[in-house]
Amino acid sequence: MVLKVKPIARWDKNLDGGTNLSIDALTRLATALDADLQATNRAIVARMDSPVALIPQLAAHLVAAGGKRLRPLLTLASARLCGYEGARHVQLAACVEFIHTATLLHDDVVDESVLRRGLASANAVFGNKASVLVGDFLFARAFQLMVADGSLDVLRILSTAAATIAEGEVLQLTTQNDLGTTEQRYFDVIRGKTAALFAAACEVGGVIAGRPEQECAALAAYGQNLGMAFQLVDDALDYAADAAELGKTIGDDFREGKLTYPVLLAIAEGSGEETAFWTRTVGEGEQAEQDLGTALEFIARHDTINRTIARAQAFAESAIDSLKIFPPSAMRDTLQDVARTTTARRF
Amino acid sequence: MVLKVKPIARWDKNLDGGTNLSIDALTRLATALDADLQATNRAIVARMDSPVALIPQLAAHLVAAGGKRLRPLLTLASARLCGYEGARHVQLAACVEFIHTATLLHDDVVDESVLRRGLASANAVFGNKASVLVGDFLFARAFQLMVADGSLDVLRILSTAAATIAEGEVLQLTTQNDLGTTEQRYFDVIRGKTAALFAAACEVGGVIAGRPEQECAALAAYGQNLGMAFQLVDDALDYAADAAELGKTIGDDFREGKLTYPVLLAIAEGSGEETAFWTRTVGEGEQAEQDLGTALEFIARHDTINRTIARAQAFAESAIDSLKIFPPSAMRDTLQDVARTTTARRF
Repeated sequence: MVLKVKPIARWDKNLDGGTNLSIDALTRLATALDADLQATNRAIVARMDSPVALIPQLAAHLVAAGGKRLRPLLTLASARLCGYEGARHVQLAACVEFIHTATLLHDDVVDESVLRRGLASANAVFGNKASVLVGDFLFARAFQLMVADGSLDVLRILSTAAATIAEGEVLQLTTQNDLGTTEQRYFDVIRGKTAALFAAACEVGGVIAGRPEQECAALAAYGQNLGMAFQLVDDALDYAADAAELGKTIGDDFREGKLTYPVLLAIAEGSGEETAFWTRTVGEGEQAEQDLGTALEFIARHDTINRTIARAQAFAESAIDSLKIFPPSAMRDTLQDVARTTTARRF
Repeated sequence: MVLKVKPIARWDKNLDGGTNLSIDALTRLATALDADLQATNRAIVARMDSPVALIPQLAAHLVAAGGKRLRPLLTLASARLCGYEGARHVQLAACVEFIHTATLLHDDVVDESVLRRGLASANAVFGNKASVLVGDFLFARAFQLMVADGSLDVLRILSTAAATIAEGEVLQLTTQNDLGTTEQRYFDVIRGKTAALFAAACEVGGVIAGRPEQECAALAAYGQNLGMAFQLVDDALDYAADAAELGKTIGDDFREGKLTYPVLLAIAEGSGEETAFWTRTVGEGEQAEQDLGTALEFIARHDTINRTIARAQAFAESAIDSLKIFPPSAMRDTLQDVARTTTARRF
């Protein structure tokens, strides 16, 4: 059910005069890497194939349905930024997308989601069982691709990211409905579930280019900070976006009792009726239809959407800074613009 | 709910005079490898740790609860059979157990199981969400351990096995409730979901010992055939074992509409009332309480439990033959006894 709730923040207008720079920067990135991206898309389709027909069917529903391909683009861009001239980055970008897709499939099962990227989620169409098992297949297939690539460094980076993602997801599960969740705990969750793969996606680009450790670490730092910014914005959008634009139902995090940053801040500063409200709706998960509207009022009262975006902007600044050790180039500019404008996206 | 159904086959008595040789052979294997097995258990406990407390808690429920450690024992035994003297087999045996445990966690979610090894299953205690995510963690951790080991050959073997397992599981899902499932399709399912990991577990033992390809292939063939025999017996036991001994509810496969070998044979040869019965209960999944009893009658009428065990014995013979290229040794004898007696196990 999609509740009709008016967005309560339009911070993007303050940032870029109403244009959507974040999409522009991503579009510029995708355009600059068009041949690589198309090769990656071909690799994705080729490597998700299996004699078991349900696997490509289900994978296609999610993988081929599009999405921004943000994470594989980061691998492609990082490699090119480092002057990489070979073809390995294409297969590894496909790996990164497979790992991401596997986690999406499992996330949607865990969250009981019905929408993903504006379409019915895979679990809603094919069932939870198929989503769990095809997720496992894509994850294993990602490792097969890495083994074929042959770099133990790449395998180390991405297997560690995969373990960290799972830790972040489990931590998120244990903080669900827990009003005692601290800011620190929240940042641990998003560092694991989101930033770890952004960091790894960037780092492998430097590794296959044979760049020194300092540069690979700078790429990882860029990805890490970009991922933190990205997830903070995501968590703000769950209370602020137009559902039609976001491609998922608004208020999902609230209904699932997720202690995301906008809510954490509101809970910390609320008192009396607010505390009672959060305890009932998020702590005990007892919600009525009008509760999301009340939650949005309290969130607006404490201005926590804009404060969440401000935190995202600080991470974006760190991402931009991380790339300063690379000489100026069109690719560096574009990656910095992606970070600069990630807080301007509306969906 | 555990139905009170009398076991309809006691084939083990015909094979070994009522003793349980299969357990004896496994016990002998575990005894011969006692130091290695204890080191593996320590590695398992050490490496399933995480700052996210729910991970070791849930993993301990399954991993530390015991189980036969059959698959890691195969890795340890194969390495020793090949004269391996180092310590890598211990970490790789832990990897194999992690992959197995991850698939068990996801299986139990997919099958909605409430019992595993005679205890409440992890999903019943911790919920499906935690089981999905901790499974993902263990899977990723297995790859981290392999990367630390550093052999791309081992990584290739186990990542391929992991993809094949997932394919087998998805194939099983698509054949569920499908009365048109062929024998070939059934064997494809069990080759994927069970035999692939048995084969990989054995093969890596030869690989780390640096044995020639022919010997590694022989070990893989042993594991593959043992795994086929093992799963056929498992599928027979689902209709024939004492629930208390089996450690899971009897008739699970029937209730889940799984087209396992004992049922496939009965369906193929049934007519009239039998066809109508299988169509309703397995094809359409409409079951009443007395239906399991009727299923057991039809299965007995076509003697399909004993015929399933006969197929298992043929695979066990192939497993035994596979090891003949190795010079005689106590370890070879024990591994052959494990195959010889796998069809005698009652739980």
